[in-house]
Amino acid sequence: MPHIDVPAGLAGPRGLMVLRPETAGPLSEMAEVLLRGPSTLSRAERELIGTYVSSENDCCYCQTIHGAVAAHYLDGDEELVRSVKQDFRHAAVSAKMKALLNIAGKVQQSGKSVTEKDVAEARDQGATDLEIHDTVLIAANFCMMNRYVDGLAAWTPEDPQFYRERAVKLADHGYLGSASR
Amino acid sequence: MPHIDVPAGLAGPRGLMVLRPETAGPLSEMAEVLLRGPSTLSRAERELIGTYVSSENDCCYCQTIHGAVAAHYLDGDEELVRSVKQDFRHAAVSAKMKALLNIAGKVQQSGKSVTEKDVAEARDQGATDLEIHDTVLIAANFCMMNRYVDGLAAWTPEDPQFYRERAVKLADHGYLGSASR
Repeated sequence: MPHIDVPAGLAGPRGLMVLRPETAGPLSEMAEVLLRGPSTLSRAERELIGTYVSSENDCCYCQTIHGAVAAHYLDGDEELVRSVKQDFRHAAVSAKMKALLNIAGKVQQSGKSVTEKDVAEARDQGATDLEIHDTVLIAANFCMMNRYVDGLAAWTPEDPQFYRERAVKLADHGYLGSASR
Repeated sequence: MPHIDVPAGLAGPRGLMVLRPETAGPLSEMAEVLLRGPSTLSRAERELIGTYVSSENDCCYCQTIHGAVAAHYLDGDEELVRSVKQDFRHAAVSAKMKALLNIAGKVQQSGKSVTEKDVAEARDQGATDLEIHDTVLIAANFCMMNRYVDGLAAWTPEDPQFYRERAVKLADHGYLGSASR
């Protein structure tokens, strides 16, 4: 049960956002820009970064919903999502993605954990400054959302089908206004 | 030196924000709403929560600038800011603030660390649902900003006077558009 009184039946951050529309706006906009806005990283890649960080933070809601969105973009390949969470170094993603996931994992621990070597390795694999910037900010953003959702004990449905269906809606319509949809 | 190529002379997130104006907007808006918008928590109290979390995350830039903003609101009482960072349970803040700082400290570790008992204690000291919500989101937001700043090794000036002067500007004009001011 959530720690505070929020509307029933709205999973994850949605119930919390109804309580505080002033913060719901910029939170949704951040997700929309980072995960769906123009970028040389694909939407699937960005969702995978968020899913991996949420998994490291042990946030059940975020890793499941964003893993489902990533799988939706990847023609339903839930196995790839699982392999990224479990051991991204041996997952079927590009060398650049592995270097970016390494940076995201460091950010999950602490910003200070990211080394010049981590960044140089990403650059060696073709990552641009903007891709490195966005990877750090996506990872940091999920460190916020994971804490928001779990810190208030937001409702986390257990049925995997719930997330698959919600993922299609998010992939089709995006994160803007998602709290009320 | 920052990990990526950002304009020189802009401290903390400001340099990073210039590189990515699309995310600068919602990031600034979040800070404005959470730290300065209408609330039953004073601006000084909210800045203290952010300062404490930044201190626990060992983020030099954020704890120094937000500590300076808090001190500015508190008629220059830098000693109180220091005492909140070092041992808030014995600092000269209200029992409600101590209960909220306890929740913020749990959020800094992990959302899952916040217990029903933590929330009940805050409520016993008079905290409302919205104050508990905002405390969790402020703490989570600083967990993001600390990682953003340190994960990209943003420029962190060493001169305390830099922060005192910048704090006056932030207190006077707020966080909206602060990246370009």
